[in-house]
Amino acid sequence: MDLELNHPVALVPTMGALHAGHASLIELAKKHSEEVVVSIFVNPLQFENPNDFSNYPKSVSADIELAKASGATKIWVPTFEEIYPGDPEIIASGEIGNIFEGVHRFGHFDGMLTVVKRLFDLVQPKCAVFGEKDFQQLFLIKKMVAQFNLPIEVISAPTIREASGLAMSSRNQKLSVSERDNAAGIYKALNLANSTPDLATARSQLTKGILAIPNFLLDYAEIIDGDNFSIANDSTSNSRAIIAGWINGIRLIDNMVMSNWSNLGNSK
Amino acid sequence: MDLELNHPVALVPTMGALHAGHASLIELAKKHSEEVVVSIFVNPLQFENPNDFSNYPKSVSADIELAKASGATKIWVPTFEEIYPGDPEIIASGEIGNIFEGVHRFGHFDGMLTVVKRLFDLVQPKCAVFGEKDFQQLFLIKKMVAQFNLPIEVISAPTIREASGLAMSSRNQKLSVSERDNAAGIYKALNLANSTPDLATARSQLTKGILAIPNFLLDYAEIIDGDNFSIANDSTSNSRAIIAGWINGIRLIDNMVMSNWSNLGNSK
Repeated sequence: MDLELNHPVALVPTMGALHAGHASLIELAKKHSEEVVVSIFVNPLQFENPNDFSNYPKSVSADIELAKASGATKIWVPTFEEIYPGDPEIIASGEIGNIFEGVHRFGHFDGMLTVVKRLFDLVQPKCAVFGEKDFQQLFLIKKMVAQFNLPIEVISAPTIREASGLAMSSRNQKLSVSERDNAAGIYKALNLANSTPDLATARSQLTKGILAIPNFLLDYAEIIDGDNFSIANDSTSNSRAIIAGWINGIRLIDNMVMSNWSNLGNSK
Repeated sequence: MDLELNHPVALVPTMGALHAGHASLIELAKKHSEEVVVSIFVNPLQFENPNDFSNYPKSVSADIELAKASGATKIWVPTFEEIYPGDPEIIASGEIGNIFEGVHRFGHFDGMLTVVKRLFDLVQPKCAVFGEKDFQQLFLIKKMVAQFNLPIEVISAPTIREASGLAMSSRNQKLSVSERDNAAGIYKALNLANSTPDLATARSQLTKGILAIPNFLLDYAEIIDGDNFSIANDSTSNSRAIIAGWINGIRLIDNMVMSNWSNLGNSK
């Protein structure tokens, strides 16, 4: 590996196709460390479908500019063999890797954890920044760090949104203008759930909000306990609404902590 | 690519872990060309499960010896980036990629065709040899070659068997002695089907043979038309029995042309 790093290092793992959401992760990393490494690696092991791997948007030169402008000191684009010089130790995501995002994406979270572990091993960062938008991913990474007792601080960065409220995603560019308007309904549904006095009302408002999104094909909408990914109940103090679905074949996910009535949380 | 080849070339694509079955492919290739290239590439795009990729047996130095001893003039172990320097064109395996072996292995045959096409493009062989044991794979490769009108002869090599009749496979080494004995029942079931006077009797004998295999967890057993992978009927002239299942978690597949009562075939 040709990485010469000035430790301590803050790491921002990405799959490229960087947008304002990534810029915010890099800026946050910069607050924790002078040396900020942005890795760009589209990991074949976390795609179940060869087409998804092949079609994943790539824009390395634009990515490098955005990363540098946001404060990155090293942009690292490893080869497959650098990441996987031999058989990687596959990290099992366990039960929580097989629910919600994991249901239709067999092996996805195992592949994701495996590459994150490899990046951690190779870079040895003191901290690493991940977006809260992929909340289940963030949860599983924190769990892995605890499991292996890694000396790495996992920093979660708040979701960056378009003016409409739509969570930033490289997939948004595939939406038409009207589809993008509709997609903002996901954020509205999350806010609707959060504007209620209790869990039961939140559930019905979440459903109501989702039904109001034109041409939205729901995968799941649930209010979970953000501490353990179980279904929230009335005594859950860190409730979080999670939504996933498709608009015209484009998969969209989002989530929001239920701060209005769920006792606390969010800092977890 | 550091491949300097003396065309014409016969290609034997493998994923390593070579055994006597592969040796027979290489020997067959040698009959078609002086220059025989054996590629060893464990293709991440055809594994749906990161564990399967990671656990796939590797034995490159032994592989090189066996390949050379069998007549290979070049052993090519490409890197991931050599095979996929950019986004690969994913080859769709279509309907036949989603039945039998494709049912539980979403994306598997697309990934397989994609890598075979890349190997063909890079090596430009005049012929390529594949084992008849993976009959559905062989079928799909022939279909792809026809679809793209590639000037490549696809040569199918007969299945090499252990003394018991068990088809050679790198997975056999994971079986215990008694499990290996039991696994030979697959070959017995195929022969039982072939020893009958007609399709209906063959179907019942195939079932009978499978039920006689101790601790065999059946995935499928069917008699198909080897020309189009439809279910065989009484007018099918190229019938082939196909079986897949597990013994103690090890997946085993085999097939046999029904030469005894199916009118012809086998040469396809």
